[in-house]
Amino acid sequence: MNSTRTATAAMLAIGDELLSGRTKDKNIGQLADMLFLAGIDLKEVRIVGDEEAAIVEALNALRGRYDYVFTSGGIGPTHDDITADAVARAFGVSCIHDPLAMDLLAAMYARRDMEFNEARQRMARMPEGARHIENPVSTAPGFHIGNVYVMAGVPQVFTAMLGTVVPHLEGGRPMLSRSVASPFGEGDIGTPLAAIQKKHPETSIGSYPRFESGRFSTEIVIRSAEESPADAAERDIMAMIAEIAAAKAGI
Amino acid sequence: MNSTRTATAAMLAIGDELLSGRTKDKNIGQLADMLFLAGIDLKEVRIVGDEEAAIVEALNALRGRYDYVFTSGGIGPTHDDITADAVARAFGVSCIHDPLAMDLLAAMYARRDMEFNEARQRMARMPEGARHIENPVSTAPGFHIGNVYVMAGVPQVFTAMLGTVVPHLEGGRPMLSRSVASPFGEGDIGTPLAAIQKKHPETSIGSYPRFESGRFSTEIVIRSAEESPADAAERDIMAMIAEIAAAKAGI
Repeated sequence: MNSTRTATAAMLAIGDELLSGRTKDKNIGQLADMLFLAGIDLKEVRIVGDEEAAIVEALNALRGRYDYVFTSGGIGPTHDDITADAVARAFGVSCIHDPLAMDLLAAMYARRDMEFNEARQRMARMPEGARHIENPVSTAPGFHIGNVYVMAGVPQVFTAMLGTVVPHLEGGRPMLSRSVASPFGEGDIGTPLAAIQKKHPETSIGSYPRFESGRFSTEIVIRSAEESPADAAERDIMAMIAEIAAAKAGI
Repeated sequence: MNSTRTATAAMLAIGDELLSGRTKDKNIGQLADMLFLAGIDLKEVRIVGDEEAAIVEALNALRGRYDYVFTSGGIGPTHDDITADAVARAFGVSCIHDPLAMDLLAAMYARRDMEFNEARQRMARMPEGARHIENPVSTAPGFHIGNVYVMAGVPQVFTAMLGTVVPHLEGGRPMLSRSVASPFGEGDIGTPLAAIQKKHPETSIGSYPRFESGRFSTEIVIRSAEESPADAAERDIMAMIAEIAAAKAGI
């Protein structure tokens, strides 16, 4: 990875239940939060169903374009859990019952006096050559191969796996982020805010409308790698708010 | 559209705030729910940031592949609202201040004694030839062009706009959906459930793991266009649960 630029990432969330509305995804927001703190730039997210061809195509598009790809879902023990097969196919390798994962799971089920049956053995399947991602919640590991990190869809497990992965990622460059709550909607601030963005090109200024009790307000967010451009932009935004407020108050 | 198959759809959610974690998307789940009820098959979702090239590329990929594409975000009055420009570019047409939208907004701001300034006029911009999507919440319309429906990102507005669009979509074929709560995790039901899916190919059986208080359980969902295959699959699932429960009880 080129050390002078910020690492980029994509996410592929896998599961029919996300597309039918049955499950409301929580993992995208979780990944976004954790990558933001690590200073890695999440550039794109895709959600596809439990269809091998769709998973393979999306994965190959994303892994060629971004430094890291994180997937969620489809690594459980049932017939619709096909992520391991799809990832193996995307990388052109075999999908095997990983011996170390078989040992881990066999020991766990023996301890709990439960049968280590064919379905549970599915959870040991991964592309040949993949390395484990530890699962501190329920043992069955995720895995990573190349720049792709494959994790469970159950949010508690996804988050725990991500917690073991993110601290080891390279290329992060944490960005400063300042937030200013504007009592005025985007219609009031749009024109002056565009001028402020133009004046401070080292910053990235976003505005996020809120709509509550029939009124719009705005959260203005300044992002920057350095303190001083963020400070300068923040001062201009405060001056803008003062000016609009004074005009509304008839001062 | 071929009337013998179910219409397909994709969603493109647009906004840096979704990728930085600042905003947790609520629109994907809302669209998924409404399309499911309308019997339209949501096949893919993508999230991209406020970058014209990324929006154009995703939009062109999705609109060529699915019957309908729904977008959220980027149609407000600020400099980072660039969805109208990107959609116009994807369709190879000009992005104009739509005269009817200008009239609607001018009248609304006149009634509220607010200035109809340059920023607010941005909300009247849309690709030449686009038709309005009514905004019952805050007036500024969305628009549709070809098979693409462009809506606001603020959830209350997105949902209201969607409510005016979905009843008019063609090609929906509502699916029956039955849900069975299994007290057993996927490890217990995986092997027999795969056999049940194989026996009932007219149905699509999914299983969704839950993890609560340190235990896994599963929601099993049967989808089918017709009643009788769903009934038959449901009976076999109940028999499977009875058998596992009896084995666990040592009966």
